[in-house]
Amino acid sequence: MEEEKKLDVAFMQEALKEAEEALEYDEVPVGALIVMGGKVVARAHNMRETSQDATAHAELLAIRKACEALKTWRLVGCTLYVTLEPCPMCAGAIVLSRLDRVVFGASDPKAGACGSLMNIPGDDRFNHRPEIVPGVLAEECARILKDFFMQKRQKNILT
Amino acid sequence: MEEEKKLDVAFMQEALKEAEEALEYDEVPVGALIVMGGKVVARAHNMRETSQDATAHAELLAIRKACEALKTWRLVGCTLYVTLEPCPMCAGAIVLSRLDRVVFGASDPKAGACGSLMNIPGDDRFNHRPEIVPGVLAEECARILKDFFMQKRQKNILT
Repeated sequence: MEEEKKLDVAFMQEALKEAEEALEYDEVPVGALIVMGGKVVARAHNMRETSQDATAHAELLAIRKACEALKTWRLVGCTLYVTLEPCPMCAGAIVLSRLDRVVFGASDPKAGACGSLMNIPGDDRFNHRPEIVPGVLAEECARILKDFFMQKRQKNILT
Repeated sequence: MEEEKKLDVAFMQEALKEAEEALEYDEVPVGALIVMGGKVVARAHNMRETSQDATAHAELLAIRKACEALKTWRLVGCTLYVTLEPCPMCAGAIVLSRLDRVVFGASDPKAGACGSLMNIPGDDRFNHRPEIVPGVLAEECARILKDFFMQKRQKNILT
């Protein structure tokens, strides 16, 4: 159990690196990772503005990449690490892809669908219920978002 | 209003053609269309098995195609037609993409997120609420699904 916690922290640090990568594209910094048997099988960050694709959230891109890498839509045995609580779209994709576990960092009181506004992966009317682990490196994951939005606001005031 | 109803039926018939196209790939027959100013800007059908992508639902593919065609993630002024009530993933994508309207055919009591199990596009905690029109050509849209699953079961009994 202690070992699992250490691994979760280590992989969330990797997901944070993906979030930092998003900053280079001036994208809202959210990063995601999919891990199977201790190995990273997919990594992605939010790309909505750059790709002009409404569905290009970090988690959805990571799930699609993992399906491609593993050549199956069933991500059984996989864990998703994401720096921000998934929204309804991503939470729905998590259920559909049969992920075993979801570990997230910061909670999202405005759009979170894994415990905040609703709990889609915990809804027993669906045929799959992944384990949800909230709050891993929550402060670091929230800070990168807060800093991003604060800088955006400052730029808006100055320009 | 009467004119809008006629258009909705005509476009749902087009979405049904997409569902029929899915049958050629032995995919669960669900079809979707995105229309702007009376013109079809994207069309897609379920491709989960063929593409081995857990996110390859008709609606999500249509939304991604429409974003690409219109070069924007904001599908303002667009209507989505889909033969089956959207699931949580697709309902979440509908909210994120700012679609004006969603017209669907058959309800989905097992996974529907536009009124059946939950109502994501009608949730006033999100910053966008598209108009939802349920039940257009509902019987035809349900029948193609029932026939598909009945044939699947018969094959399973015979083999």
